[in-house]
Amino acid sequence: MSFINKDFMLRTNTAKRLYHEYAEDIPIIDYHCHLNPQMIADNHRFKNMTELLLGGDHYKWRIMRAGGVDEKYITGDADDFDKFRMWAGTLPQCIGNPLYHWTHLELKRYFDIDDTLSPESAERIWRKGNEMLADKDFYVRSLITRSNVEVICTTDDPADDLQYHKQLLDEGFEVRVLPTFRPDKALDIGKNTFAAYVKQQGISTFEELQTWLRERIDYFHQNGCRLSDHALEAVSFAEGDAKTVFDTAISGQPVNPQQIEIFKTAMLQFCAKEYAARDWTMQLHIGALRNNNTPMFQKLGPDTGFDSINDLGIAAPLSRLLDSLEVADSLPKTIMYSLNPKDNYVLGTMIGNFQKAPIRGKIQLGSGWWFNDQRDGMVAQMKALANLGVLGTFIGMLTDSRSFVSYPRHEYFRRILCNLIGEWVEYGEYPEDYGTLGDIIQGICYRNAKAYFGF
Amino acid sequence: MSFINKDFMLRTNTAKRLYHEYAEDIPIIDYHCHLNPQMIADNHRFKNMTELLLGGDHYKWRIMRAGGVDEKYITGDADDFDKFRMWAGTLPQCIGNPLYHWTHLELKRYFDIDDTLSPESAERIWRKGNEMLADKDFYVRSLITRSNVEVICTTDDPADDLQYHKQLLDEGFEVRVLPTFRPDKALDIGKNTFAAYVKQQGISTFEELQTWLRERIDYFHQNGCRLSDHALEAVSFAEGDAKTVFDTAISGQPVNPQQIEIFKTAMLQFCAKEYAARDWTMQLHIGALRNNNTPMFQKLGPDTGFDSINDLGIAAPLSRLLDSLEVADSLPKTIMYSLNPKDNYVLGTMIGNFQKAPIRGKIQLGSGWWFNDQRDGMVAQMKALANLGVLGTFIGMLTDSRSFVSYPRHEYFRRILCNLIGEWVEYGEYPEDYGTLGDIIQGICYRNAKAYFGF
Amino acid sequence: MSFINKDFMLRTNTAKRLYHEYAEDIPIIDYHCHLNPQMIADNHRFKNMTELLLGGDHYKWRIMRAGGVDEKYITGDADDFDKFRMWAGTLPQCIGNPLYHWTHLELKRYFDIDDTLSPESAERIWRKGNEMLADKDFYVRSLITRSNVEVICTTDDPADDLQYHKQLLDEGFEVRVLPTFRPDKALDIGKNTFAAYVKQQGISTFEELQTWLRERIDYFHQNGCRLSDHALEAVSFAEGDAKTVFDTAISGQPVNPQQIEIFKTAMLQFCAKEYAARDWTMQLHIGALRNNNTPMFQKLGPDTGFDSINDLGIAAPLSRLLDSLEVADSLPKTIMYSLNPKDNYVLGTMIGNFQKAPIRGKIQLGSGWWFNDQRDGMVAQMKALANLGVLGTFIGMLTDSRSFVSYPRHEYFRRILCNLIGEWVEYGEYPEDYGTLGDIIQGICYRNAKAYFGF
Repeated sequence: MSFINKDFMLRTNTAKRLYHEYAEDIPIIDYHCHLNPQMIADNHRFKNMTELLLGGDHYKWRIMRAGGVDEKYITGDADDFDKFRMWAGTLPQCIGNPLYHWTHLELKRYFDIDDTLSPESAERIWRKGNEMLADKDFYVRSLITRSNVEVICTTDDPADDLQYHKQLLDEGFEVRVLPTFRPDKALDIGKNTFAAYVKQQGISTFEELQTWLRERIDYFHQNGCRLSDHALEAVSFAEGDAKTVFDTAISGQPVNPQQIEIFKTAMLQFCAKEYAARDWTMQLHIGALRNNNTPMFQKLGPDTGFDSINDLGIAAPLSRLLDSLEVADSLPKTIMYSLNPKDNYVLGTMIGNFQKAPIRGKIQLGSGWWFNDQRDGMVAQMKALANLGVLGTFIGMLTDSRSFVSYPRHEYFRRILCNLIGEWVEYGEYPEDYGTLGDIIQGICYRNAKAYFGF
Repeated sequence: MSFINKDFMLRTNTAKRLYHEYAEDIPIIDYHCHLNPQMIADNHRFKNMTELLLGGDHYKWRIMRAGGVDEKYITGDADDFDKFRMWAGTLPQCIGNPLYHWTHLELKRYFDIDDTLSPESAERIWRKGNEMLADKDFYVRSLITRSNVEVICTTDDPADDLQYHKQLLDEGFEVRVLPTFRPDKALDIGKNTFAAYVKQQGISTFEELQTWLRERIDYFHQNGCRLSDHALEAVSFAEGDAKTVFDTAISGQPVNPQQIEIFKTAMLQFCAKEYAARDWTMQLHIGALRNNNTPMFQKLGPDTGFDSINDLGIAAPLSRLLDSLEVADSLPKTIMYSLNPKDNYVLGTMIGNFQKAPIRGKIQLGSGWWFNDQRDGMVAQMKALANLGVLGTFIGMLTDSRSFVSYPRHEYFRRILCNLIGEWVEYGEYPEDYGTLGDIIQGICYRNAKAYFGF
Repeated sequence: MSFINKDFMLRTNTAKRLYHEYAEDIPIIDYHCHLNPQMIADNHRFKNMTELLLGGDHYKWRIMRAGGVDEKYITGDADDFDKFRMWAGTLPQCIGNPLYHWTHLELKRYFDIDDTLSPESAERIWRKGNEMLADKDFYVRSLITRSNVEVICTTDDPADDLQYHKQLLDEGFEVRVLPTFRPDKALDIGKNTFAAYVKQQGISTFEELQTWLRERIDYFHQNGCRLSDHALEAVSFAEGDAKTVFDTAISGQPVNPQQIEIFKTAMLQFCAKEYAARDWTMQLHIGALRNNNTPMFQKLGPDTGFDSINDLGIAAPLSRLLDSLEVADSLPKTIMYSLNPKDNYVLGTMIGNFQKAPIRGKIQLGSGWWFNDQRDGMVAQMKALANLGVLGTFIGMLTDSRSFVSYPRHEYFRRILCNLIGEWVEYGEYPEDYGTLGDIIQGICYRNAKAYFGF
């Protein structure tokens, strides 16, 4: 039996039945990812397996470094096949790592390859894969449509003109590719890139910044955007004179940590109100500690595999931030993801403080994110949500990926979900009522997200 | 087979045997709850299933909000049956939530209802339940005595005259209903209600406050009290001039965070010494972040389902607090509960720093509390205690509840305990020696608490 | 079947095969422990079971206190047999505690005793054990050689003359006993013992301190040392004028917390560079909160069972510390252990920021340490590492022990490792390829450490 077989990750008969009858065939709504919309618009063709599987994938780069692979074979100028071989040499040591599962799901689902990747099989897989990549079934748009995807939400800067999203709509690409509004650069007043960024938009006053953001939100809205996204290394809440902080920063003066907090708080509140007014969803990605390795940052830039998990307290400031919006009756639908699993219970109870009809699960505990996007991380997130709230309202998984063959991660999630619920049922901890169980599973995998976002 | 059957939550044969032979039939000592003693004294009769199952139960209110139910059907003026229907509509989505189990245990144990609660069964259960509530077996005292309860410890303000506890004793109610001394209002000097509270007791100096507390402790002691309870949103330790802080607050001046810490530290030390002198037990409930939603707090007040988990560090200040008492030879028996599961290992090792003969487990890691009062939370607490200390000295579960049908939570705990131990035994990780196992289980479920508190 | 049987802790057939075929018989590299080298040099003979099993073992002392045993029977002047009986009385209550397993492994492996220790068996075991201790197979060197140990790394102060290590080398003891450089006393400038310590070494200036440390590192290197070790109660990073801080402290003036951080940061950086230059490994033991009980500290001193887990944030300062070394191209091989399990994911991702060829797993997540040295703790550490990095590069377990019969903890770890991997394989989550699996397991249990340290 091949490694990726029909009952992969499904440990009980109930889990198998739940997955195959209810979860396997329903469409995907990938409401958060980092795909490059231009590559979809251009219907990009991959030149070889290394570009497809390793190109831009900092998860894998990072793992190869841990395995002792020289940077030359990761981001350097080594031959593409040698890079692939190095990956094949690292992977078998990655027992228990999601990349082991994802890689074999990718090989099986897109290439129908049953071989496990290893030094022994590397060349065989390289050749077979490269041959198949020449077929138009492997161009970007086909990779997406073959994956049963209904909606994709990319992640975009407010200044983006969204030309590729428009092009895809104009051309009638069957999958909706929608932008997401991610204004981090306009809020990160502590970064030395802030002043240049806002000036580039022709902004010189605090009021102009807010006007510009509101206009961009409108523009995104007209182009189908219904989600925003904010990265918060830490959660802060400080009220004060944000205008003065802006004036200080724009004039080239340094701003202190307290001022940064005041500015970010005011801007998050501003944005949240605009989102709420348009029935958007606000995503908060909390707790990444980025660019930890200075020499490698200088060499390769951000998003190259040198990020990790922060561990600050978040409960009290997050409570005050959300409450300040609730007081102003302007708390939008909100999804909170934390990179640190210690926050599962903090967030799992925090969402309960601000739930409000008529939306089911208005405030959501985000699915296992980044380093938590694996079985243990997903199970921890789902058990926290189940123990503390209503699992049946969960809007489910997303890829958060830069890769066009990452859709099997939805399959992976669904198998893990069905396995979790199947175990409860087999042990008599929830009735074996397939009608209700199927309803819960299809809700989490597809229908809840569709209703929640209004897609 | 009905959902709540005799082997509910028991996954192995060893677990079944342990539960049925050693745990099932022994009495309950519910040493911490929030029952209203007046309702026991009055032998309250519930008018319908909504009052019994949903009245005052903020756990369920919170879950209904997460499920998208309008506040009208939760705390509003909707018809009681409509409220019950809304609960029935929410519950099936709560897969993996303890309320799913608790609710069906309540229906089975008190009403012998095998139906699972759902929109389909709601009216049937409503009618049958309401009929049965008319019977005197369902008046408050019968609900308690039918549950095999030996001792109940309520939670009471120092100013309480304990008239209902006295009445119950005078009337010879077969279950001992004892007060617990919870002086939060006399210690929370940062709250704007502090000055009014102490003035109401005729207190105008720091010395008078201490004298009053000592007198109330004596009064509680005479009325059978053997436990105290303190809620600590954060743990602080700061030594200083508490008298001046008191004078500042009582005169209506604001006190700063450092002053609040000084006052709380001094008062906790004062109280602890009084407890130690009377062989009382001090409970510390650490880490709740309360009243997060201002509009709902203004509408409904506290304890209505808008609380969550705080995430501050506690190790160093807690160590200093306990050590300051140990140095003064006045550390009472102490139970520390944390709402944040990240603290299980911190507390699980902290208790080991202050254990002292002749009391077995003098310092206790409190059972899974509030949001952790579910299978995963209880197992995490018990595994922490087992790995770090002596599980056999654990004083076990409590309901912490406002509900008169919450006693099946002891059953739930006992099943989970037996299942945990049963798994270890089945896998050969502890000898299959039923004498010792039964001794450990009966100790945790009943005998340890009885000896520890001296009941 | 005896409690400690051949398949102890092995729940699946795959686990059994993996353990017996690949893990059981390979040698031990115990790269971190607290054995007394003089006792090895002297080939110490234990007078009775109490000295062997309870002497200096603060893990057991602590547990006995939790069980309500009077200090007289722990560190006091009670008769040795009475102490042993008290231990026998406590142990059966310790269900789920690693001491239950370790103790029976010790009795089985060294004494071939199948009895479980209890009040009933205490005298029988005491007699049989004491008889056997008279045999030279039970002298210290035999206990080590019988345990299939290849290398032992003790933990030593820089001022140590290493005479016993030299003696063992000179006498040709078949097990290599190497020192580890642990300069805590030379770095803990906040402690009141600091000035006396450095003066004792004839040091009066900051430059002399660095010169002395460098000379001691050279001396240790000449005597086979390849590891260093630092205990960090908290992780700090603060750059500044360390020389002035030293001058302040050495002159008897108090130093403030900020100054302490500056000094420690500078000294850690200094030491790390020296380690990197010699291809040493730096161990960081993070997060112990020590000596919490002042009366007992005054009575018994440190390392007597009154330590616990700290809970400060570590991510950002640790990142800056490691990055400062990477910027200077002087980050040595590093192993980071945290006592708080909340840090598993923080450290598990932090190590990924600084991995660098050609070393496989240059930066390591340390194995389950101290309070985490049990099944759940080891599994949590290995799952974190597996999910976040390359489990196949893990350098595995160590005893961290003061006991000469602690080697079965390696067996315990190997069984737990094989059980974890066996479960994945049985459920089809990694191919049943025994060649690769055996390679991974033998790597983790022995070969990776050997290669990593260059032994």
